[in-house]
Amino acid sequence: MHINKIEHIGIAVKSIEEALKYYEGVLGLECYAVEEVKEQKVKTAFLKIGETKIELLEATNDDSPIAKFIEKRGEGVQHIAFAVNGIENVLAEVKEKGIRLIDEKPRKGAEGLDIAFLHPKSTGGVLTEFCEKNN
Amino acid sequence: MHINKIEHIGIAVKSIEEALKYYEGVLGLECYAVEEVKEQKVKTAFLKIGETKIELLEATNDDSPIAKFIEKRGEGVQHIAFAVNGIENVLAEVKEKGIRLIDEKPRKGAEGLDIAFLHPKSTGGVLTEFCEKNN
Repeated sequence: MHINKIEHIGIAVKSIEEALKYYEGVLGLECYAVEEVKEQKVKTAFLKIGETKIELLEATNDDSPIAKFIEKRGEGVQHIAFAVNGIENVLAEVKEKGIRLIDEKPRKGAEGLDIAFLHPKSTGGVLTEFCEKNN
Repeated sequence: MHINKIEHIGIAVKSIEEALKYYEGVLGLECYAVEEVKEQKVKTAFLKIGETKIELLEATNDDSPIAKFIEKRGEGVQHIAFAVNGIENVLAEVKEKGIRLIDEKPRKGAEGLDIAFLHPKSTGGVLTEFCEKNN
């Protein structure tokens, strides 16, 4: 398998509005999109940095994975996403190598990407996402 | 201020040797350098992904910041580093905007970079590093 780049870093925040005061107001980045992913009960905001992005994640419901993450660990980096080609083959390859998959098959994520998560218990504590721009 | 790119993502691991079984053996990345930063009591390993890097961090002593991080939160993403120009001016600018600095002045980090950390209490829980290639 080959990782093309880090597609984004997902950061759990209590409030996107508050977080943007830091990311835009202090760091000078620009939020170019805000999108709700209903299935995951999150609102996302994207900021571009070079070839990669920061994805701010705010829970839209108390039982959202992001709400649970913040309750347990506080705000902070929640996942890293790698851009790959042929995501289904990549998932099969890492599973073959003993990695535990959260998503056996890709599903739709923010920005229309095909995405799938690996379990952090297999990846040294880092919740890891593969994503691919679909055609 | 302007952030050029994400310079690296710092990941705390119990053992670089074990972590490389995943990063090299599963993800197909290549570790191109291992370096000890004595002042920080860490051993670091770097893997390139596109324009950015993953920096694996292993404590060389029980009182290393990395040992404390793992004791408290387990293995996982420990910090994000942004490449900037004019790091001293950037530090002055973010301090002026109310950000709490861990390093008031840049110091030497891995790979010979000038580095300085911002306190995660001012940055939404993300330990944040600025770095600049010095001349």
